[in-house]
Amino acid sequence: MTATVHPLGASRSASLDAMMQLVAGDLNHVNSVILGRMQSDVVLIPELAGHLIAGGGKRMRPMLTLACARLLDYGGTRHHKLAAAVEFIHTATLLHDDVVDGSGLRRGRRTANIIWGNSASVLVGDFLFSRSFELMVEDGSIKALRILSRASATIAEGEVNQLTAQRRVETSEDHYLDIISAKTAALFAAACRIAAVVAERDEAVEEALDAFGRNLGIAFQLIDDAIDYASDAVTMGKGVGDDFRDGKVTLPVILAFARGEEGERQFWREAIEGRRNSDEDLAHATRLLRRHGALDDTIDRARHYGQRAIDALGPFPAGKAKAALVEAVEFAISRAY
Amino acid sequence: MTATVHPLGASRSASLDAMMQLVAGDLNHVNSVILGRMQSDVVLIPELAGHLIAGGGKRMRPMLTLACARLLDYGGTRHHKLAAAVEFIHTATLLHDDVVDGSGLRRGRRTANIIWGNSASVLVGDFLFSRSFELMVEDGSIKALRILSRASATIAEGEVNQLTAQRRVETSEDHYLDIISAKTAALFAAACRIAAVVAERDEAVEEALDAFGRNLGIAFQLIDDAIDYASDAVTMGKGVGDDFRDGKVTLPVILAFARGEEGERQFWREAIEGRRNSDEDLAHATRLLRRHGALDDTIDRARHYGQRAIDALGPFPAGKAKAALVEAVEFAISRAY
Repeated sequence: MTATVHPLGASRSASLDAMMQLVAGDLNHVNSVILGRMQSDVVLIPELAGHLIAGGGKRMRPMLTLACARLLDYGGTRHHKLAAAVEFIHTATLLHDDVVDGSGLRRGRRTANIIWGNSASVLVGDFLFSRSFELMVEDGSIKALRILSRASATIAEGEVNQLTAQRRVETSEDHYLDIISAKTAALFAAACRIAAVVAERDEAVEEALDAFGRNLGIAFQLIDDAIDYASDAVTMGKGVGDDFRDGKVTLPVILAFARGEEGERQFWREAIEGRRNSDEDLAHATRLLRRHGALDDTIDRARHYGQRAIDALGPFPAGKAKAALVEAVEFAISRAY
Repeated sequence: MTATVHPLGASRSASLDAMMQLVAGDLNHVNSVILGRMQSDVVLIPELAGHLIAGGGKRMRPMLTLACARLLDYGGTRHHKLAAAVEFIHTATLLHDDVVDGSGLRRGRRTANIIWGNSASVLVGDFLFSRSFELMVEDGSIKALRILSRASATIAEGEVNQLTAQRRVETSEDHYLDIISAKTAALFAAACRIAAVVAERDEAVEEALDAFGRNLGIAFQLIDDAIDYASDAVTMGKGVGDDFRDGKVTLPVILAFARGEEGERQFWREAIEGRRNSDEDLAHATRLLRRHGALDDTIDRARHYGQRAIDALGPFPAGKAKAALVEAVEFAISRAY
């Protein structure tokens, strides 16, 4: 299965099944590392971390590390610890995100900050983040450490950047792409790139996998942005309207604001400032988004990055691993249909 | 100057001057690394980080790295980046601490969470933490990375442990020592230990410096605990009664609670639960502490750890560096007089 056989995004039936089958054995090992390393004598740590880690996450990022390693015919086990480190960084980021956003629900479950409080979420996030570096140190590759510490700094930078933009509906599309490239796509890119490090492949291979992950990450985030306004979509448990109620500026809003008339812009300003967050406001927002094609065009932008992700895999030989990675991109896009 | 010539804690005149003179040149380099690496295109990052980093910190931990390196006659520059990494970890911890404690003042200045909000403090803390790992990766020593990632995980574990104990006045002295060994002493220990790594000395030297730093860190924290109740002390800008008003269980409280009668214990329970935090309550608390010798004995415990820190330096030759480190311990203790 390649991109040319299956036009991207045309398939509602794309799934992560092929990738999950491809990496099932490795993923079991990664899961034991994750469970083993989130333990602590301080019982609140495994309790809180377990809530999030066991709570329905797809392990998307570690699966990408494993699938990319398979693409490179890597037969070792070094990537198990590194994939667990990636998941810990992701989990730490989610814990801090929920505090920053004041979120109460994630994937339909109450968030850790609601159950245990913001302080515990901040500190357990710090613990998981430190633990992720301990795992990388055990692996011992300075190159992997460089990639993941860079990605971590970039994520934090992107989060602060988003915080600055948070209540500014005038955020430009370029600025928004910078934000999600940092806060979402950097870890996807790093997760894929470290596969080339453990497989000891050259810089060109590293960069191809980095580009694959980065573009997939952007596509993934843009589809998430669209799904948040699409009540008829397969939402993967994400609550509809969360972004709207949190006053988050995402690409659909940026497009609708740019294309709207002054009355509409006033509505968006008030919404993003948090003065319009009722169900009726959400329904009105969704109507405006549809009127200007903002959701379709957000999905179209996502397809563009998804296509770039698939094309970044060009240099690699066809096979099960490549097909699974291509289908992961198709799946990311198909969630919007 | 050795411990036998100057009995520990007898001198009010001990200062950090000798250590500052010893490492002045190196500290300039560390300060440029710190200033250079807290930069970002996201302007909120240097703004917020600069507030704390430029805001009257003593650079105690990086100075310890530099002074320990001098003790080992290390003549290189590798420790500049690592000392900056240590300060970044410390700064990240302070930012998150102030969010967790809901603090409004630090060293007499408004805290970052009050000025820029909790979200910005959490995220800029994450950024500095990631940046600290990038600095270590640039140095390239897996051993230094192992020491500092372990210390970071230990700090976070200690903070969560303290959070669990936060409103529990029945916390035991042993439990409290576990907490401060993790949340304060682990970074002091790591700051000293990495000097042995850059100087390429053996495990015994590493462990001696680790023990020096760890015991100094415990002494430092215990004196901080005592100072918080001692209005006539040189307070280094720390507000008197902060711990009391935050309902923090520290060693003076643990001792007074253990030694008090039921009526006093009831007072402490209410205080630690946050139901007694007026100036009169603070005055009453201080009277109880003095009645039971809880402050003197906290200082005495600190002297014990200070003495152990000095004795850990036994294997090293006399000289300016050793004298400066001994005086740093004397200074830590003397703050209580």
